Amino acid sequence: MSEKIKETTPVKLPPHSVSSEIESGPLPSPLPPERRVGYAIVGLGKLSLGQILPAMAGCKYSKPVALVSGDEKKARKVALQYGIPETGIYNYYNFDDIKNNPEIEVVFIVLPNSMHEEFTIRAARAGKHVLCEKPMATTVAAAQRMIDVCKEGKRKLMIAYRIQYEPNSRLCKKWTREKTYGKVRIITSFHGQNMGDPDQWRLKKDLAGGGSLPDIGIYNLNTARFLLGEEPVGVLASTFSTPGDKRFREVEESVMFQLFFPGGAIANNTCSYSIHANRYYRCHADDGGFFGVDNGFTYGDLQLEVSHVKNNLEWSARPSLGPEKNQFALEIDYMSDCVLHDKTPYTPGEEGLQDQKIMEAIYESARTGKLVKLERITKLDAFRGEEPE
Amino acid sequence: MSEKIKETTPVKLPPHSVSSEIESGPLPSPLPPERRVGYAIVGLGKLSLGQILPAMAGCKYSKPVALVSGDEKKARKVALQYGIPETGIYNYYNFDDIKNNPEIEVVFIVLPNSMHEEFTIRAARAGKHVLCEKPMATTVAAAQRMIDVCKEGKRKLMIAYRIQYEPNSRLCKKWTREKTYGKVRIITSFHGQNMGDPDQWRLKKDLAGGGSLPDIGIYNLNTARFLLGEEPVGVLASTFSTPGDKRFREVEESVMFQLFFPGGAIANNTCSYSIHANRYYRCHADDGGFFGVDNGFTYGDLQLEVSHVKNNLEWSARPSLGPEKNQFALEIDYMSDCVLHDKTPYTPGEEGLQDQKIMEAIYESARTGKLVKLERITKLDAFRGEEPE
Amino acid sequence: MSEKIKETTPVKLPPHSVSSEIESGPLPSPLPPERRVGYAIVGLGKLSLGQILPAMAGCKYSKPVALVSGDEKKARKVALQYGIPETGIYNYYNFDDIKNNPEIEVVFIVLPNSMHEEFTIRAARAGKHVLCEKPMATTVAAAQRMIDVCKEGKRKLMIAYRIQYEPNSRLCKKWTREKTYGKVRIITSFHGQNMGDPDQWRLKKDLAGGGSLPDIGIYNLNTARFLLGEEPVGVLASTFSTPGDKRFREVEESVMFQLFFPGGAIANNTCSYSIHANRYYRCHADDGGFFGVDNGFTYGDLQLEVSHVKNNLEWSARPSLGPEKNQFALEIDYMSDCVLHDKTPYTPGEEGLQDQKIMEAIYESARTGKLVKLERITKLDAFRGEEPE
Amino acid sequence: MSEKIKETTPVKLPPHSVSSEIESGPLPSPLPPERRVGYAIVGLGKLSLGQILPAMAGCKYSKPVALVSGDEKKARKVALQYGIPETGIYNYYNFDDIKNNPEIEVVFIVLPNSMHEEFTIRAARAGKHVLCEKPMATTVAAAQRMIDVCKEGKRKLMIAYRIQYEPNSRLCKKWTREKTYGKVRIITSFHGQNMGDPDQWRLKKDLAGGGSLPDIGIYNLNTARFLLGEEPVGVLASTFSTPGDKRFREVEESVMFQLFFPGGAIANNTCSYSIHANRYYRCHADDGGFFGVDNGFTYGDLQLEVSHVKNNLEWSARPSLGPEKNQFALEIDYMSDCVLHDKTPYTPGEEGLQDQKIMEAIYESARTGKLVKLERITKLDAFRGEEPE
Repeated sequence: MSEKIKETTPVKLPPHSVSSEIESGPLPSPLPPERRVGYAIVGLGKLSLGQILPAMAGCKYSKPVALVSGDEKKARKVALQYGIPETGIYNYYNFDDIKNNPEIEVVFIVLPNSMHEEFTIRAARAGKHVLCEKPMATTVAAAQRMIDVCKEGKRKLMIAYRIQYEPNSRLCKKWTREKTYGKVRIITSFHGQNMGDPDQWRLKKDLAGGGSLPDIGIYNLNTARFLLGEEPVGVLASTFSTPGDKRFREVEESVMFQLFFPGGAIANNTCSYSIHANRYYRCHADDGGFFGVDNGFTYGDLQLEVSHVKNNLEWSARPSLGPEKNQFALEIDYMSDCVLHDKTPYTPGEEGLQDQKIMEAIYESARTGKLVKLERITKLDAFRGEEPE
Repeated sequence: MSEKIKETTPVKLPPHSVSSEIESGPLPSPLPPERRVGYAIVGLGKLSLGQILPAMAGCKYSKPVALVSGDEKKARKVALQYGIPETGIYNYYNFDDIKNNPEIEVVFIVLPNSMHEEFTIRAARAGKHVLCEKPMATTVAAAQRMIDVCKEGKRKLMIAYRIQYEPNSRLCKKWTREKTYGKVRIITSFHGQNMGDPDQWRLKKDLAGGGSLPDIGIYNLNTARFLLGEEPVGVLASTFSTPGDKRFREVEESVMFQLFFPGGAIANNTCSYSIHANRYYRCHADDGGFFGVDNGFTYGDLQLEVSHVKNNLEWSARPSLGPEKNQFALEIDYMSDCVLHDKTPYTPGEEGLQDQKIMEAIYESARTGKLVKLERITKLDAFRGEEPE
Repeated sequence: MSEKIKETTPVKLPPHSVSSEIESGPLPSPLPPERRVGYAIVGLGKLSLGQILPAMAGCKYSKPVALVSGDEKKARKVALQYGIPETGIYNYYNFDDIKNNPEIEVVFIVLPNSMHEEFTIRAARAGKHVLCEKPMATTVAAAQRMIDVCKEGKRKLMIAYRIQYEPNSRLCKKWTREKTYGKVRIITSFHGQNMGDPDQWRLKKDLAGGGSLPDIGIYNLNTARFLLGEEPVGVLASTFSTPGDKRFREVEESVMFQLFFPGGAIANNTCSYSIHANRYYRCHADDGGFFGVDNGFTYGDLQLEVSHVKNNLEWSARPSLGPEKNQFALEIDYMSDCVLHDKTPYTPGEEGLQDQKIMEAIYESARTGKLVKLERITKLDAFRGEEPE
Repeated sequence: MSEKIKETTPVKLPPHSVSSEIESGPLPSPLPPERRVGYAIVGLGKLSLGQILPAMAGCKYSKPVALVSGDEKKARKVALQYGIPETGIYNYYNFDDIKNNPEIEVVFIVLPNSMHEEFTIRAARAGKHVLCEKPMATTVAAAQRMIDVCKEGKRKLMIAYRIQYEPNSRLCKKWTREKTYGKVRIITSFHGQNMGDPDQWRLKKDLAGGGSLPDIGIYNLNTARFLLGEEPVGVLASTFSTPGDKRFREVEESVMFQLFFPGGAIANNTCSYSIHANRYYRCHADDGGFFGVDNGFTYGDLQLEVSHVKNNLEWSARPSLGPEKNQFALEIDYMSDCVLHDKTPYTPGEEGLQDQKIMEAIYESARTGKLVKLERITKLDAFRGEEPE
């Protein structure tokens, strides 16, 4: 192959439309399959099978090379479907053997929350980088241990948040930071869904660590922090569980929590496990505009919303960024980018740890009925790594 | 005039469209002008001139017959514009002379909050019924005195809330009560605007009684109570004012407050005086749906929003009730209806007093950083009068 | 009354919000009732009772002073409701006596189409100005006679189109003329409703003059002409009526018609009398945008729509001009303005005549299955009078 | 591998949400890569590189195994990116050698329109099935030859329409056929975009065969036929090109065309090459509803729209089918399904031929300024193959 063929240089074509139309951007330019970063997916539940594995097909820098599951039959079936070799099938006992599989560069942990610590540590000790689902852990202490072990082994640890890699939310963050519509003074945020089977692990305290807060309220929390780049100095919260509802014997149903940021912004958040699915956030700015993302925390069908005053009209708009990109593919490819180019993930373990600390404060406020103060952190983006382009 | 002509019977016409189309309802049937209830408008500020007087032109049972203002020139100009006789012009000193004007049946008080008490009492003592702008008063004690004096004089006292008379919110209340989309478990509500002139009366503690809470946060509070028909048993709240902002030297800028209802519903509310105007509320139910009103608390351009699951699709709808009706006309005409047919207003003084009590609890929670408990009231619609049809 | 009190000068109040918010405009400043222009309403059908009379209550320069109806009982009932004196009640026989009633300055003709000519001529001969519902007439010849008689008697003749006085469409016209989003090259327009009773006058050829075209298709036609300010040089059209549908024995059900404008714009229009009510138009421009009005031809609940490219996003917006103004009140008040200040109406008889000519060409094209050419008119707004401010 | 592992049986998981929520459907169950149908992509322009090759990564039954291009360097670069072996690279001269490559089962032709015939015939003669971009050809005669040669060689021929495989349009077709909102009487349809470079092949008559009609107007035409399942019996059309616009020296700019269907439905369509991109269609039914797809003809970001009357409200809804599926992947996988299970494609050559015939009639009507009649076809879905499930 001639040196002139730079396989990562995108192919260019002349513009099809006049310049006042949307420019469609460079053509996709995936890395040759053999050079993509190999992943072991740990846990074959709904998220892995319904989202992560299908998303990997659309990745440009990543590929699945191994599966870890307690159900060998299921693992074999899925491996066949995605072209993963039989040698890439592991279970929770022989998991540590991944150290001998050079195809595996990253371990993606998609297990119940309380198992994140163990498998992160085992993966790092097997010499692999780790991409771990949120919430990172069920305690601050566990989260800290995960960070420590990865650091010790010089392994990258990224928490699998999606907001930071999703184009609509990235634009909202840009507008917040650049004060496009003035200073964002209030963020309101809502995340609800209606849980089914009372016996699922998400409703077990020892597996999930909590109820709606660590599973879905973490989006409200993490998004407010991301948008502003600041860390809250206080929280005021309450939790509510319907007496007698079997789903909420161990974990909380709903949480309302207020966050106070040092720059003067406040955030009012609601999450619930007992209502019709609905997710959105809005950034209320002071110079004639607000913006946010409807359906903002879900896997697809997101809708940017902007309302602002121009020419004495209120322009309520639903701007489109064009056909949606798969958020999981964006997130996973960014992890691969960090591996390929030795970068610190934008959402490293430290970012997850900070959410963990604030969630503990939220629970404390709810328990005591009082405002809880948090350490004042003055640095912007204090816990984030390198920002994706 | 022949007896056969019943002037209040609506005229009927054959249907124009097929039956699967919207039926446009009965034709308007206003009361003859000389039989409409006469109002004295007290205070000629923006609300009176921009909304109330123009709305009166579209009323079916009400008419303006007097103006009360400290600015005689303005009063004369406005009286001419609306066909009000010179004998219907009063000032704050000779206001009590209204007792001699039989044209005046109702006094509509549109003054700064702290003046509501005095003028309600003077109006009632002049033998007139009272329609008083919200918030009813600046203290619980004042609100109670207003009720007492009106009761003593057997005068009707209605607080000029609009939500209870506005068709979109009435439909949301119906859906909440009838559990159309299941039980409403969470109400989220937002009311923001961006105040201008720091010297306006709304930013003076002694005139307004508070900041964003009594002026606009009262909508969040009053609407949640109306939708559910219940009274909160606890509140958790915080207030925030940007240091150095001249507008918020005396009154609060923003309030976030959580309400806990005895039936298990919770409400999370935000109001602010420093952000781009935006108002909405959403009722989150548990049986596959949510609903609410976008732009819900403002004078017009309201939009009902419903999202629900049917045939495994998410139907995000913006149902239309047809061309908007003027909310002020609906509210004022209902007061006239009460006068004409001797009914207790749907939003009597007691309804305003209850908001006043809860607002005091909200301030207390914000001041102490703690949950404040409220008296448990078990009756539904405990403080409301007869419901409009 | 002191001279200093200029009753038509609007009252001014200090701004309530910061300058980045919508400015609410001057306060309403109606003319004193005794100085408003007096109208006789001819015909008490659905439009008069459901829209025009209620709208008059909100007029600033107009008032109803007489009713003309074949049903005396109905006329008396309605007169009472709207405060019209008994001396203002006429029937179709004694209609000419209006010449003796100085209160009547304008006659508003709201009768079946084929009666427009007779009553316009009788009104003009009685010395009154005329506001005549659309379509102006059922033939070109009749329309011309109406113009001639009014001109002879120096009476003003305005056709009661609403689009030209409605703020959303006025803004679309401004954007079209100013090329805000580039040159408008294509206008698409749709107007459908589903007729009920087969015996209503609108489905009788001799009363209505035609079917969906003169009743609702006229909006598509008139709006395209208004937006562009040009007159079509050709039309290509077809009509369709479902065989056996009793409603369409005499008049056409649906019409599709293409209009060709001299400046290079084309318009594609559809109207129908047999489908679920839906009305909209869109102006497709060539510089990254389109705009139009959803629900554009109806009485209320209109929605401006704009979609344009900015910052490589597609901004699909629904800009709001704030709470809706009553279109009938705007239209009627403009007629009064013309009477009060001796102006030529913006939509005079000549405007109606031109629609009549084009509708005849549309029918001819449909009948022959061929393109029909029209006289080339080069002047912009060739048939319009003075534009409202 | 044990027989018990049926690799195409989807994995099942317990429901996560209550039953009133959206059910997310079965988990993806792709065919093992080695069993997927292999494609040769002919032509590496914007559509192949920007849409088709990336979409193939998300296919469940299909994979790219060869590329055909006149630009070897580009072909090599792209082959590397998508893991296609060097032995799968062909040019237009050695294209017939594909007969020796058993990996290639289907040839996907993505060339300028006038080249479709040659490459379809060469592919079929090489023993391969053909998936050919729309429009199928530039003449009726060419289309017929393509069908004949494929039939002769017993090769499948599918035209690469997307509408028939896209879930929103499939639902609209279902509602049309089942009369969910009554009988669809009128379809309106719009497809516009704004062409850039006057030298691109789409603006050359000999390469494209025409202008906006065969490229984008074909969507309006093909969709109306698909929704109704009927074939038009007449067309009335006009074309327009701005004099002096360099882009339209050879091909037409805009086309407006009316279609008349035997069951009484009519369709009014507009396509243009000189306006801001906008695409939508609406089905106007007679029983209180209309529906359609906004952005309906484009690659993504489609939005179903339904408006209907219920409980005397107009429910304007934007129902969501959840995160979008890639239309190209759906279309290509259906071709593979036909190959794997020996089915006639839903959009076979005959479907493309019928569009070709109607487009010739449209041009004839525009040229003559007269209605053109078409053969009456009474069979429903006369030219379609087996419908996808």
